[in-house]
Amino acid sequence: MDITHYMADVGRQAREASRAIARSETGRRNRALEATAEALNRSRAALADANRQDLEDGRANGLDEAMLDRLALTDARIDAMIAGLHQVAELPDPVGGITDLAYRPSGIQVGRMRMPLGVIGIIYESRPNVTVDAASLCLKSGNATILRGGSEAMRSNQAIAACLRDGLAEAGLPNTAVQVIETRDRAAVGELITMPEFVDVIVPRGGKGLIERISQNATVPVIKHLDGVCHVYIDSHADPEKALDVAVNSKTQRYGTCNTMETLLVDSEIADDMLPLLADRFAAHEVELRGCERTRAILTGISAAEAGDWDEEYLAPVLAVRVVDGLDEAMAHIERHSSRHTESIITENLTRARRFLKEVDSSSVMVNASTRFADGSEYGLGAEIGISTDKLHARGPVGLEGLTSQKYVVFGDGHVRG
Amino acid sequence: MDITHYMADVGRQAREASRAIARSETGRRNRALEATAEALNRSRAALADANRQDLEDGRANGLDEAMLDRLALTDARIDAMIAGLHQVAELPDPVGGITDLAYRPSGIQVGRMRMPLGVIGIIYESRPNVTVDAASLCLKSGNATILRGGSEAMRSNQAIAACLRDGLAEAGLPNTAVQVIETRDRAAVGELITMPEFVDVIVPRGGKGLIERISQNATVPVIKHLDGVCHVYIDSHADPEKALDVAVNSKTQRYGTCNTMETLLVDSEIADDMLPLLADRFAAHEVELRGCERTRAILTGISAAEAGDWDEEYLAPVLAVRVVDGLDEAMAHIERHSSRHTESIITENLTRARRFLKEVDSSSVMVNASTRFADGSEYGLGAEIGISTDKLHARGPVGLEGLTSQKYVVFGDGHVRG
Repeated sequence: MDITHYMADVGRQAREASRAIARSETGRRNRALEATAEALNRSRAALADANRQDLEDGRANGLDEAMLDRLALTDARIDAMIAGLHQVAELPDPVGGITDLAYRPSGIQVGRMRMPLGVIGIIYESRPNVTVDAASLCLKSGNATILRGGSEAMRSNQAIAACLRDGLAEAGLPNTAVQVIETRDRAAVGELITMPEFVDVIVPRGGKGLIERISQNATVPVIKHLDGVCHVYIDSHADPEKALDVAVNSKTQRYGTCNTMETLLVDSEIADDMLPLLADRFAAHEVELRGCERTRAILTGISAAEAGDWDEEYLAPVLAVRVVDGLDEAMAHIERHSSRHTESIITENLTRARRFLKEVDSSSVMVNASTRFADGSEYGLGAEIGISTDKLHARGPVGLEGLTSQKYVVFGDGHVRG
Repeated sequence: MDITHYMADVGRQAREASRAIARSETGRRNRALEATAEALNRSRAALADANRQDLEDGRANGLDEAMLDRLALTDARIDAMIAGLHQVAELPDPVGGITDLAYRPSGIQVGRMRMPLGVIGIIYESRPNVTVDAASLCLKSGNATILRGGSEAMRSNQAIAACLRDGLAEAGLPNTAVQVIETRDRAAVGELITMPEFVDVIVPRGGKGLIERISQNATVPVIKHLDGVCHVYIDSHADPEKALDVAVNSKTQRYGTCNTMETLLVDSEIADDMLPLLADRFAAHEVELRGCERTRAILTGISAAEAGDWDEEYLAPVLAVRVVDGLDEAMAHIERHSSRHTESIITENLTRARRFLKEVDSSSVMVNASTRFADGSEYGLGAEIGISTDKLHARGPVGLEGLTSQKYVVFGDGHVRG
């Protein structure tokens, strides 16, 4: 198979389909989502069969248990995909809305109309459910999609793609609006990220290594999500109960997520009181603490944080703890070590809360709330395609709006410029 | 001079200054703009002197008259820079505004706060006034700026930079918030566009060649403005007077601008009536028409449009004219040949206007208005740093808002995720 030729065909078909999707009625796109849900439900046997083959190959190829678990398409996961499709169908349509329409002194009327981006390329790793989740958000927002999943999930993804094609066809939409790449050849990714004539944006979903590799080589813009080194700062004016609850929840509610706290900063004025209380609570969750020298002077039993700990995304029950002298030192630490994902201050002091909110340059900045809230559904976006750590276009959780942009619309009555 | 080392220093200083600018009060940034205007006014002699040397060198190096004219810093142009600074000072501050603040079912309150992008790199050609225009918009929107002008304007740009530094210092802001690169070495541009750790976005201003070169080599995101191949489509239901006025204004109000019409599409149903009237009006402006075969069957005297004419940005009194069979053929032509800058339909038919507005995928889409309106000040943005032909982040005229993005802010009262 000539990969360049194949990918150009896929790209050309996606570009063509994107026009039909962009101008399709909301109801038709929703119908395609509902019909895909029905097709998935009808195709449980075929899905199970394809997935069984992927799992067998995976075992033969020595995939570890964690990867095999991510790859597995259980009935519960199919139910979740179906529920997700219904949920996306129920979200409001972001496409075509006109805002800020106003008359200008010249007499023309100027506004902004929200439009799909066009063709979105999604590159992801082993979970086959991403195929449906990503495709449904792109379709709802009027975009065509080219999906490239992990090669170990190839058969499962193709079985899901067949359901998406059925759904599109049933709604009278071109079934090339969602294409799943049919080759295991890695060169396909290289082509996908360098076809700006056919692809408007790439959304990589996976580990940091994958995303960095794609960002470095792409000539198509990338909406990317790198790591989440998130901080909670307990200010001297914090309410101790709130501080304990938020710090513990930020770390322990889930360990493997990007919005989990990785470093806790505690003001020196309250460190003597707070650190032992925190240590007790974390001990109950079996979280390993790694402290700075001042922390270890209070919590004598814990191990020392090395220089690298302050930049580490543990994704595990491990927490770096540092004592700082006030807000400025806390913000300086965050400025230096944060990945600009999410930071939270715990304080009852209005002035400090206002400074933290304004001056901390992260995609989510919080006061007296758990970092775990940094999430598209908690923020009311309905669903998210990822959390952007970029500053341009979309910052933080990216929902349907992040898959669109605004063009200007102008109404005149024969107006000319003088 | 070690360029890599020099540029890293410039970058590091800009990054540091960007924090002070981002958290500075509106009044202080406005004061810096006003004080820069005063410094320019005081420094007319020094500016004239620096510019005289640039012009002498330019003549000695064989610059043509058009380039020398762009390079010249006349008193009127200094007045315009001063007026521009006052105007930007009077614009509302985009930074820090919180929108969409709402309670979520969990009890947290979520909103979006508009923030500066950080450090903006501007790469431009000979006009020294860009130094002030670009720096003032970046400063107002809370960003630090690194400017790289044409080497032929080096002394003029440095003289202007001194005024900007004076203005910043007088307002108590770090004078490294605006830096003009002090070397003619072209390697400086290569460094500037590949320092994502210090620069958040590049805005190139200049010819298509410059912008393409930068886009291809940059690892920092680029807000770019490529060409403007703009169309006016005269529908069969057009009001003939409006059609004539808008078509003539779109072409002749200025020839060298990106929002000037380059191709006129006329519906075949009205071509017999409209084309001779249009030809008369364009003849009065000495605009050369280049027609398709059907156009030349009606306007027998004009020359033939070659295949390349439909993709040409003439920037001159030349116009390509094509007869099309209805709206679909007009939109297909635009889809194929437009640079997605600005297109206008002339029609009294509501259904066709609605289709054109929704389906044409350009940064500005108009009904019964001259393409020449596609401009930041006509749209009410106050001033613009350029017109983006990208789809992500900013589309169309880019004002202060395009130099910012939104982060999420979350207020809780000890809220944790369940």
